[in-house]
Amino acid sequence: MRSLKLTVAYDGSPFVGWQRQAEGRSIQGLLEAILSDIDGAPVEVAGAGRTDAGVHALGQVASAGVETSLDGSTIRRALNARLPDEVRVLLVEDAGDDFHARFSARGKHYRYLMATGPVLSPFASRYVWHVAGQLNLAPMRAAAEGLVGTHDFSVFQSTGTAVPHAVRTLTEATVSDVTASPPAPLGGNVTPGGRLLALDVSADGFVRHMVRAIAGTLVEVGAGRRDPDLSGLISSADRAEAGPTAPAHGLWLVSVVY
Amino acid sequence: MRSLKLTVAYDGSPFVGWQRQAEGRSIQGLLEAILSDIDGAPVEVAGAGRTDAGVHALGQVASAGVETSLDGSTIRRALNARLPDEVRVLLVEDAGDDFHARFSARGKHYRYLMATGPVLSPFASRYVWHVAGQLNLAPMRAAAEGLVGTHDFSVFQSTGTAVPHAVRTLTEATVSDVTASPPAPLGGNVTPGGRLLALDVSADGFVRHMVRAIAGTLVEVGAGRRDPDLSGLISSADRAEAGPTAPAHGLWLVSVVY
Repeated sequence: MRSLKLTVAYDGSPFVGWQRQAEGRSIQGLLEAILSDIDGAPVEVAGAGRTDAGVHALGQVASAGVETSLDGSTIRRALNARLPDEVRVLLVEDAGDDFHARFSARGKHYRYLMATGPVLSPFASRYVWHVAGQLNLAPMRAAAEGLVGTHDFSVFQSTGTAVPHAVRTLTEATVSDVTASPPAPLGGNVTPGGRLLALDVSADGFVRHMVRAIAGTLVEVGAGRRDPDLSGLISSADRAEAGPTAPAHGLWLVSVVY
Repeated sequence: MRSLKLTVAYDGSPFVGWQRQAEGRSIQGLLEAILSDIDGAPVEVAGAGRTDAGVHALGQVASAGVETSLDGSTIRRALNARLPDEVRVLLVEDAGDDFHARFSARGKHYRYLMATGPVLSPFASRYVWHVAGQLNLAPMRAAAEGLVGTHDFSVFQSTGTAVPHAVRTLTEATVSDVTASPPAPLGGNVTPGGRLLALDVSADGFVRHMVRAIAGTLVEVGAGRRDPDLSGLISSADRAEAGPTAPAHGLWLVSVVY
């Protein structure tokens, strides 16, 4: 059995999410169907992060055990020829036998994009959360900084999810004004008369909806409705005390670190 | 009767085109429905250019005769609140009584985007024509330059269209390598390992599918399958002699000049 590492970019808009579902198109399901065809036997694909419906990826990583002896670039070509245009396999590499996209990952980098202003570009509406009102950057930055470190992040965990514990280590949590130079794939004029803000969060792992809950909470801080000192909020471990879960379409899985 | 000038941007992907049709969502139809609601009486909206299904606009201009006394920014807000996110009204201004978006236009600027390379970004696939093989920029530039001036452009006119004549004056026809700095709304990494080319054409008017037929012909020139001297082709006035009509989704109405 040969172990492949796939690097995949996708526009999450038309999919039910990364994970295979009973109904609807998932990125995992599409990759598995094509690789199984190539191999002539069922192939399972594991993703580093199970992105929800509407969430985008610049550098999702997946692992797959295959039997084919085709080289990586040929497999990439075969996948891209049959995948919808909204999913592109950027790279197919051979990985060690023990490589697993999720369990081998040391960390992930997510970005959340939000914009203020009267009119969001029609070309950004699938990729950026359009926030009503003004946002004050300084308190958002201070609040984000306070999240860095090892904490129990239960307060940002969606209810109904059962994981052993919610202790994670954040190595980066920054808020930047990227109006003048939007991150790829966005270009200029995202929000005329407004501001485009990027929340970048890196951690060894994430609980369910964590980045979206952080984004929803930071918007309350930026709007002046919540104190930038979030230490008491984190200690509360009460999801109801944090801000709302920001919409999926502003979230980007940027990269996975191994 | 008050005459309004609307500047409108849209992602053409989910629409049947600018023009109202018996079935499907058109940008003209959406604007007319909302303005008619505001006025309490039927409002007709005229666009500067009738973009086809899949064609995008950064600065389409439309005119509408209305009775409402609401100010421009209020009308804009009311329109954007009800339009789908893929259409945004950027500006609503009062225009002179004799203003008509189409008949008052002195010229229009269209852009056609095409990319070479093994993998087109999933975030660019709706906006850029992915061309197989390599393209040589120098002969494409020379061929484009030869189109500037006043010519009978019948050779680039789709069959089945009846206009009095196909004589138009091109003031600009350039091909640029924009790989390193893609034009808005695109950002970086459109085509890793490939090139992004922009064909910019400005003229006093365009016959049906003209820019797309020019793009299809220039790609044959860039691929080395056609001589860059297009003077004989233009004289032939035979659509069958020119290249194929390039796909709609690579075409952008950039601006209208009055």
